[in-house]
Amino acid sequence: MATHAVIMAGGAGTRFWPASRAKTPKQLLPLGADPVETLLAATVRRLAPLIPAEHVTIATGAALVDATARVLPAVPRAQLLAEPVPRNTAPCIGWATATILRRDPEALIAVLPSDHYIPDEAGFLRVVGRALEGAKAGYMTTVGIVPTRPETGYGYIEVGGPLGSSPDLLQVARFVEKPNRERAEEFLRGGKHVWNAGMFFFEGRVMMRAIEAHMPELYRGLMLIEAAAGAGPSDEAKALAEVFPTLPSVSIDNGVMEKAKGLAVVKGDFGWNDVGSWESAWELAPKDAHGNALPEGAIAVDARGNYVCDRTSGTTGTRKRVMALVGVEDLVVVETDDAVLVIPRSRAQDVRAVVEELKKRGDTGHL
Amino acid sequence: MATHAVIMAGGAGTRFWPASRAKTPKQLLPLGADPVETLLAATVRRLAPLIPAEHVTIATGAALVDATARVLPAVPRAQLLAEPVPRNTAPCIGWATATILRRDPEALIAVLPSDHYIPDEAGFLRVVGRALEGAKAGYMTTVGIVPTRPETGYGYIEVGGPLGSSPDLLQVARFVEKPNRERAEEFLRGGKHVWNAGMFFFEGRVMMRAIEAHMPELYRGLMLIEAAAGAGPSDEAKALAEVFPTLPSVSIDNGVMEKAKGLAVVKGDFGWNDVGSWESAWELAPKDAHGNALPEGAIAVDARGNYVCDRTSGTTGTRKRVMALVGVEDLVVVETDDAVLVIPRSRAQDVRAVVEELKKRGDTGHL
Repeated sequence: MATHAVIMAGGAGTRFWPASRAKTPKQLLPLGADPVETLLAATVRRLAPLIPAEHVTIATGAALVDATARVLPAVPRAQLLAEPVPRNTAPCIGWATATILRRDPEALIAVLPSDHYIPDEAGFLRVVGRALEGAKAGYMTTVGIVPTRPETGYGYIEVGGPLGSSPDLLQVARFVEKPNRERAEEFLRGGKHVWNAGMFFFEGRVMMRAIEAHMPELYRGLMLIEAAAGAGPSDEAKALAEVFPTLPSVSIDNGVMEKAKGLAVVKGDFGWNDVGSWESAWELAPKDAHGNALPEGAIAVDARGNYVCDRTSGTTGTRKRVMALVGVEDLVVVETDDAVLVIPRSRAQDVRAVVEELKKRGDTGHL
Repeated sequence: MATHAVIMAGGAGTRFWPASRAKTPKQLLPLGADPVETLLAATVRRLAPLIPAEHVTIATGAALVDATARVLPAVPRAQLLAEPVPRNTAPCIGWATATILRRDPEALIAVLPSDHYIPDEAGFLRVVGRALEGAKAGYMTTVGIVPTRPETGYGYIEVGGPLGSSPDLLQVARFVEKPNRERAEEFLRGGKHVWNAGMFFFEGRVMMRAIEAHMPELYRGLMLIEAAAGAGPSDEAKALAEVFPTLPSVSIDNGVMEKAKGLAVVKGDFGWNDVGSWESAWELAPKDAHGNALPEGAIAVDARGNYVCDRTSGTTGTRKRVMALVGVEDLVVVETDDAVLVIPRSRAQDVRAVVEELKKRGDTGHL
């Protein structure tokens, strides 16, 4: 029973425009504490002590396969799955699971997002180890992040009592949609709720049975693709292009987890951060004594709490680009070769308005 | 008696960093209302109805001659005077005057700064016409700008009664150094003071006599250069390189005007602006309904009173650079290929701190 990982790397977020683009989404950017390592590369590296790159499958979009491969030279190219169109997480996980089962019918699988940041990597590995124990015992196991604030932007999991002999493996009382502020504060006080961080651990066969039971339409589609795959690569590609777009666009939470029995949750407390906006990137980045996170060589005069991201492609002649901030506070300034964004940190979510405006203009070049 | 102009274009200001550089000073930037025309080109064009480009002499620095020539294709190259080192305005005006007198001993000369902005060009030409009348009558004539605010950053001229028959030609009671706020407010209320805008009109011979009388050391140096010029171009170049650096570094105001007799002043009221900082550039630039002065195609969401200057060298592939501002107010954002500045408009003068830091680092590439 070998352990495999499925890293979901199909995201095409707009919250990091202009650094994130259709062809360079968030997971392909170095938004953690390291100024170079992308979130995706960090995800694979972090997992390596438990699941080496040869056992890693990446689920991504057709347009992102090449860029993804460049970031992950150690992952075999055949394990980069290119979804013809994005259909949310249930088809993604279902297809990746079926693909892995083809090679390894006993596979134990960890599904992880590709675009989060985890500072306590040893703590993370301990939790993953326990979650894999749960999976080995036959449970579809999730990791629930112990909340540190009354967050209204995440789904929650209500935790029940212990399951079996391990004190770490807990019952899932229920999945809870994003709460309002008041409920989020109750959750934080009550201590029974954890954040759903989109990490799932299961035996491949268990997941396929759960999909068959709760999403029969998805199951039938996946079986069509599997049958074609048995006939050869060109049949598989054809079936994928025909069938995948017809699969129900549903999340694994809504489609399977909320309906399934035999769930478990392991609590995690390893400084998880979903890097949701430039504000989070500022929080994670190394900062000077005045709270500025700046590129090397930047000049800050009487400036505090600013985040400057230089994603331009390089130097002019022999000169590096100089970023100079004077007398400004709590700003985000992002530079690329073809765009500049200036926005207060507190309004980082509003970068979406810029993306909307570009869409309205039909300016796909900048998207 | 032909009329000539001397445009003083040797400035190497730092107040428009990162757009202004040692090799691209303020006068070579389009900082007026026109997005393309440089302040220097505008100065020559504006003057053309009275003094055509063939009669224009440009006093600049050796390092700026080529860039200056590119901006002024109509000015004969021989009339671009390259000062080996900057020695303030008295040597500059003295040398340019001597050079013009060589070709035209009867020359009437207008000396003008190259880096100011004048919206009312017809009004400006009327005032220049009157000042040239004063010069023709033998007065060293200045133009005094009618103040619109209690400015403490300029020198003033106290105006006396009429001179002779023209009601426009007034006596100069005295030159006044930059006042403090209280005096500047008195000046504004009193109505007897005008701003010294560094414009001078005189017969060349009159100026040479005044230099001889009040700056004999400068006069002797100029005569050495003139004698060498009579012997041929290579002698002239040699004398210039040897003598010019030894000339007293004094302004024409301090060295000549404040001591000379026979001065006149004409009041000017043509919207003059010395374009002293990015704040002035914002004032002059066309703005949208929310007071933003932005490059074409920029996106402003809930942004007010901002000035964005894109001096990058062009497009990325077929895409233009997009500048996006969200939720920010009264900022200046300046982009070049190798630098970015973000500063509140109200602190525009503090860009000097950045230039100082670059000097301290020995980073001449960005200066």
